[in-house]
Amino acid sequence: MPPNADQTRERIVTAAARLFYNEGIRAASVDAIAEKAGVTKKTLYYHFRSKDELIAAYLESRDQPTLELYARWFEATPGTPANKIRGVFAEFARSANTARWKGCGFLRTAAELANTPGHPALKAGAAHKKRFEKWLTDALGHEGVRDAATIARRIVVLLDGAATVMLIHRDPAYVEAAGEVAASLVEAP
Amino acid sequence: MPPNADQTRERIVTAAARLFYNEGIRAASVDAIAEKAGVTKKTLYYHFRSKDELIAAYLESRDQPTLELYARWFEATPGTPANKIRGVFAEFARSANTARWKGCGFLRTAAELANTPGHPALKAGAAHKKRFEKWLTDALGHEGVRDAATIARRIVVLLDGAATVMLIHRDPAYVEAAGEVAASLVEAP
Repeated sequence: MPPNADQTRERIVTAAARLFYNEGIRAASVDAIAEKAGVTKKTLYYHFRSKDELIAAYLESRDQPTLELYARWFEATPGTPANKIRGVFAEFARSANTARWKGCGFLRTAAELANTPGHPALKAGAAHKKRFEKWLTDALGHEGVRDAATIARRIVVLLDGAATVMLIHRDPAYVEAAGEVAASLVEAP
Repeated sequence: MPPNADQTRERIVTAAARLFYNEGIRAASVDAIAEKAGVTKKTLYYHFRSKDELIAAYLESRDQPTLELYARWFEATPGTPANKIRGVFAEFARSANTARWKGCGFLRTAAELANTPGHPALKAGAAHKKRFEKWLTDALGHEGVRDAATIARRIVVLLDGAATVMLIHRDPAYVEAAGEVAASLVEAP
């Protein structure tokens, strides 16, 4: 690899992430991504064999930051596990209730690629969602919540539902409704 | 309008619905839709001023059939309101657990058009989701469920979450998990 290849790769992924998220997977062209990253298309294709590989790299780059953000929200909320879950939904409602927010990038990518089963980005997105569910299971278990795996599974459906309905109606009342249900699952005997 | 203009319009919408659903909003071209409908592009643009208008017409064409399908599932399930809700999720899991199923067309369209606020198809999609929530509120109220509007709102988040997670993992266990939560909301005192 040429010197600074890692930094170049990172610059390309950052540019791709911004354009894929803001414009959509199919709408954002490789040309526009190369231009935004300040590299030639040849350099881009040195790092990524195809646009499909670049879409997968975009989602992979969002995996850890997303997990860390939710872990921060969970840990920063004081009180019972139910309070913490309420806090996560409240923080999500706040962050989503802006013009800049355009939905969950993982969900939008899955929606756009629904006709290409086996696409590397679908695998990267599904792997992220599994890691998220695992993180939530562990976090709830650590807080002493019984049957944490079952409850975490139900909460991820509520979170993804909240993100989806928020994209449709742009109304945080749906996120609050989902948060109430999620908190009650944690409180249940 | 020329004779049979209504039938021509319907043929175009049917072709558009199939291609938009199977390939995605941006991936399906107006040329391919005209060809599938067996009309010229001039005829297509006689009925629809733009592709955007055609995307909205696609979602509008799916509004009533979708409402009727869910109403049928709800009514066909015997027993308590909670049983009926369980039945709806079970039927949805069955219908989604096929290679042919590619997610909820309303949600996928919202995902693809996230960067175009005010798009006519986003309005059509949001109007459908509001009608769905209203239908569910009325159906639960008719069954004697108290606070039907609050419960219906929570259930639509669970249903959209189930559809989204099903698209990600292709695993009906998530739909069942959502259905259990939804049924418990209806059973709650």
